[in-house]
Amino acid sequence: MTNEISYLTFDVEKLTQFTIAIFEQMGVPAKDAALAADVLIKADLRGIDSHGVARLSGYVRLWQKGRINPTPNIRIVHETPTTATIDGDAGLGLVVAPFAMQGAMEKAEKYGSGWVAVKNSNHFGIAGYHSMMALQKDMIGLSMTNASPLVAPTFSTERMLGTNPICYAFPAGKYPPVVMDMATSSAANGKLEIAQRKDIEVPEGWIQDEYGNSTTDPNGLKKGGSLLPLGSDREHGSHKGFCLSSIVDILSSVLSGGSYGPWVPPFVSFLDPLPDQPGEGIGHFLGALRVDGFRPADEFKQHMDNWVSRFKSAQTVEGQDAVIIPGEPETAAELERNKSGIPLISVVVDDLKCLAAKMAITFPETK
Amino acid sequence: MTNEISYLTFDVEKLTQFTIAIFEQMGVPAKDAALAADVLIKADLRGIDSHGVARLSGYVRLWQKGRINPTPNIRIVHETPTTATIDGDAGLGLVVAPFAMQGAMEKAEKYGSGWVAVKNSNHFGIAGYHSMMALQKDMIGLSMTNASPLVAPTFSTERMLGTNPICYAFPAGKYPPVVMDMATSSAANGKLEIAQRKDIEVPEGWIQDEYGNSTTDPNGLKKGGSLLPLGSDREHGSHKGFCLSSIVDILSSVLSGGSYGPWVPPFVSFLDPLPDQPGEGIGHFLGALRVDGFRPADEFKQHMDNWVSRFKSAQTVEGQDAVIIPGEPETAAELERNKSGIPLISVVVDDLKCLAAKMAITFPETK
Repeated sequence: MTNEISYLTFDVEKLTQFTIAIFEQMGVPAKDAALAADVLIKADLRGIDSHGVARLSGYVRLWQKGRINPTPNIRIVHETPTTATIDGDAGLGLVVAPFAMQGAMEKAEKYGSGWVAVKNSNHFGIAGYHSMMALQKDMIGLSMTNASPLVAPTFSTERMLGTNPICYAFPAGKYPPVVMDMATSSAANGKLEIAQRKDIEVPEGWIQDEYGNSTTDPNGLKKGGSLLPLGSDREHGSHKGFCLSSIVDILSSVLSGGSYGPWVPPFVSFLDPLPDQPGEGIGHFLGALRVDGFRPADEFKQHMDNWVSRFKSAQTVEGQDAVIIPGEPETAAELERNKSGIPLISVVVDDLKCLAAKMAITFPETK
Repeated sequence: MTNEISYLTFDVEKLTQFTIAIFEQMGVPAKDAALAADVLIKADLRGIDSHGVARLSGYVRLWQKGRINPTPNIRIVHETPTTATIDGDAGLGLVVAPFAMQGAMEKAEKYGSGWVAVKNSNHFGIAGYHSMMALQKDMIGLSMTNASPLVAPTFSTERMLGTNPICYAFPAGKYPPVVMDMATSSAANGKLEIAQRKDIEVPEGWIQDEYGNSTTDPNGLKKGGSLLPLGSDREHGSHKGFCLSSIVDILSSVLSGGSYGPWVPPFVSFLDPLPDQPGEGIGHFLGALRVDGFRPADEFKQHMDNWVSRFKSAQTVEGQDAVIIPGEPETAAELERNKSGIPLISVVVDDLKCLAAKMAITFPETK
């Protein structure tokens, strides 16, 4: 067994066309397939490899199980001038969430802010995609979603919450937008998967075993353990990570009528949703705030630039050039990969080739 | 030097009247003095002792320095139907923030949601007070504020951010409201102060020394070190704590026109604000979301109850009875202290006695 990971690089456009073709083969209408592909490819471009085309076969398996509806009737089921609840009709979250964000932005356009809770949806890809939609209109974007239960609350041994991400996107002026896209667990599941593939120990504070003891076994989760909330343990504030994850769970699903806590339907198709669901599907929460609802947009952006430049020039620990501004690594990855292509690890390439064969779609050559 | 902490217990009403009298002596009008006292006493009742009357002499010192305006002209300087920016006119944050929250709730009443950014304010007490105002109207409340720079971003040795708290308050049915009131640093400053008084080491991951090395010295902060963001170090997600703190800083002050980052005016009166302030005073951000903007309030509360009861019954680690629901310890403290009175540590009592003498106010007897 080798611990090395090898990469193959693909042309962005060709990988996008392949992804669209797979979604179309699932029966997703052309426009929705293009949007869903755009969300996945954006993740790969921004270096969030765990949420890009690596997940494509997962969506297909959910569709095969009848858990993803390729032609949903996405509709508003409750509304005020600045709030709404949307029923995603079991559609791809990759399609449902942008629809909801669009609705939030239209409300914000008229009234200053807009907030949409979503039920009956599925995995929505990277949170950043949806928040960043708001940037085009000089709005602050917010997106969050609950997810497959993998995280134990402080003092618990039970998987009650997902890695429930929160993303805020703030427009800036001469600097790229400041995008905070973060899981509310101590470690992202993607990082754990990398450690598993390399078969190396993980740091203390990422996962616990089935009894709630800290473990460095990268397979601890598979053996009945759970991920830990941001903060890792009580002494270091894991109750705050638990709070953050709970905020996401409540806004996404208790508010919308989705399923919450341990009932959130798992992304992996081999696990069925628990019986006696308290709601429908996965929930999201999306919001848009017009910057000029508070001060002129140019003024805000000038001060964002000042904020960024001051933080970039903060004194650093030895060996570190500068403080990393949230979103900076992702912006850099996007610039680079738009030029050089998208690198995929061989195990993902093999998985996609297998998927291509199964769905009778030609898999693109490497770049 | 003794490491023991002794407490004296005071009647809630008498301590409230004393606090009101001090504010009135500062020239704060009766109604505002009563409100400000209510915010402080609420902190003591809820067991958040670091933010109650322990801070009273700090507010007085800021007033003596001319940094708190006892009779501010708090006014809206920018507005849309659901957003507003308020200029606190250097008033007590304890008065300015409830004013802003009231505004957010009035907007939410009409349009479903309301969001108010505040500049030119001061320390607003516990975030929980303001968020919880929304509960009376079956709204979800949000409050946050930036604060004296004490926290270093990931990879930095410079104090660039405050402990910048975030608080969400969610109404429930038969259970008490679920209130997440959390600093975005690994440890609250109050906990550090307790360790200093007891002269005991603090856990790794709370603070770093001036070079960015982890230290267990409870006085590390006074020696030029800084608090660490939630997550403690990069490996455990401190960049996420940095993100959270930055979200608070940006929404509170870049959006409102307050001061941000290292420029936030310090709470301690012996430190002057930095020159070349990019904005005015401390900033807050307050929001209200009508629950029935998304689904009927009764339905939401039923599901909140189901959420709480499911989490309370989650499997626990050995030696722990149940998962602690956010806000539960504070609700319990409030019930208990409303009956038995407010315990204050002797050093706080001495400080208040000294303040009483200086302001010519009679200090209450212990209960």
